[in-house]
Amino acid sequence: MTIPESELPVAVFDSGVGGLTVLHECLVSLPHEDFLYLGDTARFPYGVRPADQLLSFALELSDILLERGAKLVVVACNSATAAALPALRERLAGRVAVVGVVAPESRLAAAATRNGRVGLIATPATVASGAYDRALAQASAGRAELHAVAAAELAPLIQAGGEVDERTVACVERACGPLRDADVDTVILGCTHYPLVRPLLQRTLGRGVKIVTSGEAIAAEVERELAGRGLAAPADRRGRYGFLASGDPEEFRRLGIRFLQLPIARVGHVQVARPAPSEPAGAEAA
Amino acid sequence: MTIPESELPVAVFDSGVGGLTVLHECLVSLPHEDFLYLGDTARFPYGVRPADQLLSFALELSDILLERGAKLVVVACNSATAAALPALRERLAGRVAVVGVVAPESRLAAAATRNGRVGLIATPATVASGAYDRALAQASAGRAELHAVAAAELAPLIQAGGEVDERTVACVERACGPLRDADVDTVILGCTHYPLVRPLLQRTLGRGVKIVTSGEAIAAEVERELAGRGLAAPADRRGRYGFLASGDPEEFRRLGIRFLQLPIARVGHVQVARPAPSEPAGAEAA
Repeated sequence: MTIPESELPVAVFDSGVGGLTVLHECLVSLPHEDFLYLGDTARFPYGVRPADQLLSFALELSDILLERGAKLVVVACNSATAAALPALRERLAGRVAVVGVVAPESRLAAAATRNGRVGLIATPATVASGAYDRALAQASAGRAELHAVAAAELAPLIQAGGEVDERTVACVERACGPLRDADVDTVILGCTHYPLVRPLLQRTLGRGVKIVTSGEAIAAEVERELAGRGLAAPADRRGRYGFLASGDPEEFRRLGIRFLQLPIARVGHVQVARPAPSEPAGAEAA
Repeated sequence: MTIPESELPVAVFDSGVGGLTVLHECLVSLPHEDFLYLGDTARFPYGVRPADQLLSFALELSDILLERGAKLVVVACNSATAAALPALRERLAGRVAVVGVVAPESRLAAAATRNGRVGLIATPATVASGAYDRALAQASAGRAELHAVAAAELAPLIQAGGEVDERTVACVERACGPLRDADVDTVILGCTHYPLVRPLLQRTLGRGVKIVTSGEAIAAEVERELAGRGLAAPADRRGRYGFLASGDPEEFRRLGIRFLQLPIARVGHVQVARPAPSEPAGAEAA
């Protein structure tokens, strides 16, 4: 018996556990779809790696996910999206559609803003890439302006775990100050870690400010893509979800549960080409 | 220098840490107000106690909070609301207004439902009290019908901490099954613990179902009450918040941080009349 294509899983990959906030939104808003998440924890973090390396990683991960029947591939990682999305789409054309971050959030933000002033909180690398500036300019036809804040400490602080404390408050205050000064009415959280401190961000920005996350934007985009391709699973179906990690499955599970906020039953292991956990950027060239 | 009445704190009390999910919503949506939370952890739980005892507790806690300048008192506890709200309001009339649970959620649910079928998940005691049936009938002028599910295990499971696992999933499935069968389009979470598993509840109920929490309902009610009495703090102000516990402050802090999802800096201790931690119901009569 073959499984109908519409009941195959949507695949989501990321450099680690951060993309689980994206999976979270997909699981809450698309409970009838199956999902398969792959965290490339053996090669985390991606932020320091050159673009050609990220493209080869993305192709390798997509192959693993396609072998397991993915009907759609989601790149839940800012670095991989910025470095490799157009090339990845081109290489997978005709096999599977690819959804990335940045453009979906920018479209949501462009639709949400009333005063045309949109804030962005992201890692220094993401801000420096200018990807959100371009995407928002395109999504708003030049009508919205982006006020970007590079928050170097926030993602590591969240990754480290521990409770939301005064250090987190200070970090969030520093990030939100310039956005309040710029009178933005919409803020994009340009890093998948940030939804874990969303209540603190909302309190600090004020409730009049609309927060846009990658998770919400991607869940909506996945739904639209699937519907457009006739690949949506039947609405009365109960979806399942599973996990793969290229690093230690138990470590993935331990870290991931905080990000997913839903049960993580089992995590499988997949072997990737370069398992060195902290291979420095450009090491081959050195 | 006297503090203007509008800048005095809103007081919130509960039998323990569950009401911190109510405070959470208040802090996120009313960031300009000060809040003072009192957890009567020395006498937790309230569910098993007789009504006259709960009224005396509520009066004692309200006195403590009024001494500290409360401009409004919120009862964030189902048991205390069911047992004592009308009497408490009467006894405090002219001194301070009192906001309780049940009625605010019922009003939100009555406004949200389109098909007139509203679900309730609550503890057996809350379901048995019939308080939500009466409140929903009143709020909807008899147009909405309540489908109540008593979930005995869910609040203790959440209180115990630990991760959201298959046991939690099974418990949520059992609670949601009858509500899906009844085709409700709105579900009241009738226990302040439940927002901690809201993503799982939403995924299980399906995204077409609107979830109503005490926190959201009370935050809206507090805002309305304060505005109606000219007691709202200036919107450009940065609010602060503090904590009191009748039991061990460190234990309150350790348990509470999961419920509040915002920093808990210090917790003060207050002495209450009956500090026995697990005084059985009706012990005096026995």
